[in-house]
This record gives sequence, structure tokens and C-alpha cells, in this order.
Amino acid sequence: MRRIVLVLVAVVTLSSLTAFIAGGTAHAGQESAPVFVKKLPAGYRDWKLISVAHEEANLNSFAAVLGNDVAMKAYRDGTRPFPDGTIIAALHYRFVPSEENNRVFGQAQSYVAGDPTNVQFMIKDSKTYAATGGWGFGHFDQNGIPAGASLLSTCSPCHAKASRDSVFTRYSR
Amino acid sequence: MRRIVLVLVAVVTLSSLTAFIAGGTAHAGQESAPVFVKKLPAGYRDWKLISVAHEEANLNSFAAVLGNDVAMKAYRDGTRPFPDGTIIAALHYRFVPSEENNRVFGQAQSYVAGDPTNVQFMIKDSKTYAATGGWGFGHFDQNGIPAGASLLSTCSPCHAKASRDSVFTRYSR
Repeated sequence: MRRIVLVLVAVVTLSSLTAFIAGGTAHAGQESAPVFVKKLPAGYRDWKLISVAHEEANLNSFAAVLGNDVAMKAYRDGTRPFPDGTIIAALHYRFVPSEENNRVFGQAQSYVAGDPTNVQFMIKDSKTYAATGGWGFGHFDQNGIPAGASLLSTCSPCHAKASRDSVFTRYSR
Repeated sequence: MRRIVLVLVAVVTLSSLTAFIAGGTAHAGQESAPVFVKKLPAGYRDWKLISVAHEEANLNSFAAVLGNDVAMKAYRDGTRPFPDGTIIAALHYRFVPSEENNRVFGQAQSYVAGDPTNVQFMIKDSKTYAATGGWGFGHFDQNGIPAGASLLSTCSPCHAKASRDSVFTRYSR
């Protein structure tokens, strides 16, 4: 509990400091309000692979996690925290059995990516997203429609529990 | 059964024809011997994402399937059969639970890529790999050591059962 309070104090102090520094050009009161990603980053489908993941339970998702060039360099060099300009994309699909593959294998063992469900982004910009650890969070459904604040405000508190600069995904060589 | 025989006849006929055509420059008897991929294609880790997959049972694998530029264009344009120059890479990892993610979620639901196990390749070259449907197959363990003919000779008969030019993996948008 004491550790959580200390982290909160650190976050609040950092936000206040950012608000103070930026105070000359913007209303200080707005600096601590979370800002979310509302525009799909261009060209993300062509980015390089960081790793893959699967979530069971309600999500039942298959994820391919891709990174832009800044992200890939930081992952490969081991640079933490991630530098400004880093963008990490999680492309989510339904996790579905492959009947075709199972027929060939002669048993039920094969799962593939089904229909796309959403794409999520983390964009590092320590000024724009100061209120959420320097990360801007975005979520777009299968039609590219961005999620609203009620969903996006849940991203940062959860990612803050990841031990590597709020990022869960590790690089797979 | 009749269909299998017809396919076999077609394959044998094609092989014989290829051997006949190429007979002027090589020993005809060698044309039908399978040729396998023994050298890691350069730069494959930076290729673009085709899709992801998971196999249970003995494999217990997580796969990220990547393609070179020729493969990506063919996938996106729907070109079948795949043109010569296509290379498809399947990067395989152990399919392991993520204790860190499960702690955050508060339940066991998260699986990630563990240690790499192997990388497999399909290279389309209708002349070099005429004996195996125009596809050359390769398998390299986690240290980059290529597999021998006993393993590689099992690839083509299985992939021939895939309905899209011997390729199982579909493109995920």
C-alpha cells in the first residue's frame, strides 16, 4: 500500500511539474486530463513483429503485436523507458479452431486467427500523454471506429502494472 | 482413392515433363529428387505479418507467419498459385502461460511466446523445387541448424493437402 501511495505521489508530482512547465502555453488544469489516441497510425499493418499472444476467458483473442521502427530499435537495443515516437500495435483476432488444419492433422489441435476484432495502440509521447505515464492509448474496432474515454481510461491503470515501462509484451527473437 | 491416384498421376506426369524439358542441361534422373532449403533466407525476422497460429498436442507451439514482399503482394492481391520468389516463414515458439499477465488479470488466461523452437520456410521456385509442387521446404532449429531430408521429406505430402497452393496460412487483415 505504501508503495502504491509513493507511486501515486510520484505520478502526481510529475504531472504537476509537466503542467507547471507547460503552463505558459496552455491551461495548467488541462494538462493532467488523459489524452487518448483517436486517429489510426498510418501503415501499422506493415510494421515488424514484436511477438504474439493469446487471451482466454471473455477475450478469446489472438494477438499479433507489431512495432514501428522506433519501437523495434528500442526493443532490440533494450532501451527502457521507450523513447518518444515509439508506437506498439496489438492486432486482435478471434481465436478459432481450424477445421482444415485439423482434418490434415487427423485430430483437433490447430487454432488460427479468425475475424479481426480490434487494433490497440500505445504511443509514447512524454508531453502529450504525461497524465498516463507518457503513453497514449488507442482502441479501434474492426471498422476503424475509435473507442471512447470510458474504455480508454481503463488502459493506463492496468498497463502501469507491467514491469517494463507499462508494456506487457516482450520481444520474441 | 481414385482422386489420389489421379493427383499422383498428374504429379508424376508434371515431374516427367519437367525432367524432359530440363533434360538438356541436367541428368534427367535427378530432376525428380526433392531439393530442400538449407540456407536461412536473409532478413526474414523483419518481414511483414501474414498471420498467427497455435498448435496444441505434441507441438504446443505459437507461430508468427511472415512473408517477404513477393509473398505479401500475392496474399493481398489474391494471386494463386504463388509466384516464384515467394517466401513464407513460420517462426515457432513455445506456447507458455504468462504469470505476469495472469497476476494483473487476476486469473489464468494469458499465453505468450516462450523460447523459440524453430523457423520453417516455404520458398516458391517452380524449377528448383519442381519435385515438391514448386515449393522448397526448410526447417532450422533455434540455433539455425537446418534439418535433414528425413524431416523435410514429410513437409510436401502434408502441405499438398492444403487447398490453396499447398499453403495452410490465410492472410489476416
